[in-house]
Amino acid sequence: MFDQLKKYFESIKSRDPAATSLLLVLLTYPGVKAVFFYRIANFIWELNLKILARMISQLARFLTGIEIHPAAKIGKNLFIDHGMGVVIGETAQIGDNVTLYHGVTLGGISPAIKSSEQVGIKRHPTLENDVIVGSGAQILGPVIVKNCARIGSNAVVTKDVPRGGIMVGIPAKNIKTGTKKPDTSFAPYAVTKK
Amino acid sequence: MFDQLKKYFESIKSRDPAATSLLLVLLTYPGVKAVFFYRIANFIWELNLKILARMISQLARFLTGIEIHPAAKIGKNLFIDHGMGVVIGETAQIGDNVTLYHGVTLGGISPAIKSSEQVGIKRHPTLENDVIVGSGAQILGPVIVKNCARIGSNAVVTKDVPRGGIMVGIPAKNIKTGTKKPDTSFAPYAVTKK
Amino acid sequence: MFDQLKKYFESIKSRDPAATSLLLVLLTYPGVKAVFFYRIANFIWELNLKILARMISQLARFLTGIEIHPAAKIGKNLFIDHGMGVVIGETAQIGDNVTLYHGVTLGGISPAIKSSEQVGIKRHPTLENDVIVGSGAQILGPVIVKNCARIGSNAVVTKDVPRGGIMVGIPAKNIKTGTKKPDTSFAPYAVTKK
Repeated sequence: MFDQLKKYFESIKSRDPAATSLLLVLLTYPGVKAVFFYRIANFIWELNLKILARMISQLARFLTGIEIHPAAKIGKNLFIDHGMGVVIGETAQIGDNVTLYHGVTLGGISPAIKSSEQVGIKRHPTLENDVIVGSGAQILGPVIVKNCARIGSNAVVTKDVPRGGIMVGIPAKNIKTGTKKPDTSFAPYAVTKK
Repeated sequence: MFDQLKKYFESIKSRDPAATSLLLVLLTYPGVKAVFFYRIANFIWELNLKILARMISQLARFLTGIEIHPAAKIGKNLFIDHGMGVVIGETAQIGDNVTLYHGVTLGGISPAIKSSEQVGIKRHPTLENDVIVGSGAQILGPVIVKNCARIGSNAVVTKDVPRGGIMVGIPAKNIKTGTKKPDTSFAPYAVTKK
Repeated sequence: MFDQLKKYFESIKSRDPAATSLLLVLLTYPGVKAVFFYRIANFIWELNLKILARMISQLARFLTGIEIHPAAKIGKNLFIDHGMGVVIGETAQIGDNVTLYHGVTLGGISPAIKSSEQVGIKRHPTLENDVIVGSGAQILGPVIVKNCARIGSNAVVTKDVPRGGIMVGIPAKNIKTGTKKPDTSFAPYAVTKK
């Protein structure tokens, strides 16, 4: 388990130059705490203790400013940096090595559609692997954001995003040009139209 | 009073598919707690105990992440979903059955205008009945948002919004076309230009 | 020291019509508390007690919803109004009499650029004197925002901003026209295209 923790830390270090030691990350990173609480809440949700699970989720929100519904499905090495105001909905799915900044929503589109017609259907986004979502971005509805896509800061995404796409603005448009494969060295959340 | 609570719960249930029981809502919905604290703070403000009222408002902000000025005027069945980062200003007015998501501001435009010239005048928005405001939207200045209008996620509204208008972008534009009456089944906060 | 506090209060009063007394500001303004905690954390950071400094910074975040890296450099009379969700990065610099609203980020652009190549270089913005940044605005990368500039609500700024510039939208564009000197009576954070 310590090994797993170390791998998680290495993955964070590669994404945040201010993350200088494992101790520092454990003590001062709210996003790490939030994911830890989510793992517990998700485990309890699976035991069908749903109200207890949501109470743990709310406790984590109080402590970290990050709200993750216990029924969300989250892969390896999710890193939520800063994190205040993040909301991850009930039917959201997140792949491996995803990075979210503060203020990000993986949300639904109720009450647009009648609430009673939405029970039991997928109403939140799916993020595949290696996706980066900039601060304040809103991804809404059961859309799919494919591998290595980047969502710009304060963008509003309500449609599927292709592999390696770079989405900017309201509503978000893909500013990725050409067909070369996604360049992971490019600015993710400061992304801007030329 | 229990009857009133039940009606409030029914109104929430119709707007959020994850709100499956009254107990769950009471225990885990920060927006419900924030409105409860506001009612107390507002009562105390009316008694002219203004500093105490604002301290209660700040306690509620600490507990829920939602900041409501005790002098704001709020109607029936306000539902603030998720709620982290919501700010409702001193002279804001909210009608009945309004829904706000997290990150919404009903704010002023100081220090644009000299602070001393603003004391005692209305400087925050008015939302009429059945308005829905998407996550991260900013409504600024003494504008009026008329019945059944929807404000898109991350939109910035600084002008009046007509009845049933659908406002998107920065600055927000009305994308509602045609003159048929507002269609309350349409997506509110995932609203997008075609 | 009381004299200094009084000057700080006067500067806040001139920027917020709801700030009616010094006592009220001390008791109920999270932005004032956050700056106070930052001063302590910054002092401890300079003593090279870096983990302790960041723990104090995180405590302040928990209490106020405002996250200021202890290594940031901040001038006189910074006023953070409401403040929930504000993030100020490690190498950010802020001049005198700056006003930030809630949800503002002075952030970096990692993991766009490899984290290991960013250690020790400036990667966050510099705000000169008298800058006003509207709620939800994101200023990202080592850009310079010159004296008296205003950044509109929910704007995303990734380039330098000239003196007195008024930046709106995603990516933010300067809507200041003409060459007359900055008009400090103009609306700052409700700024909108005509």
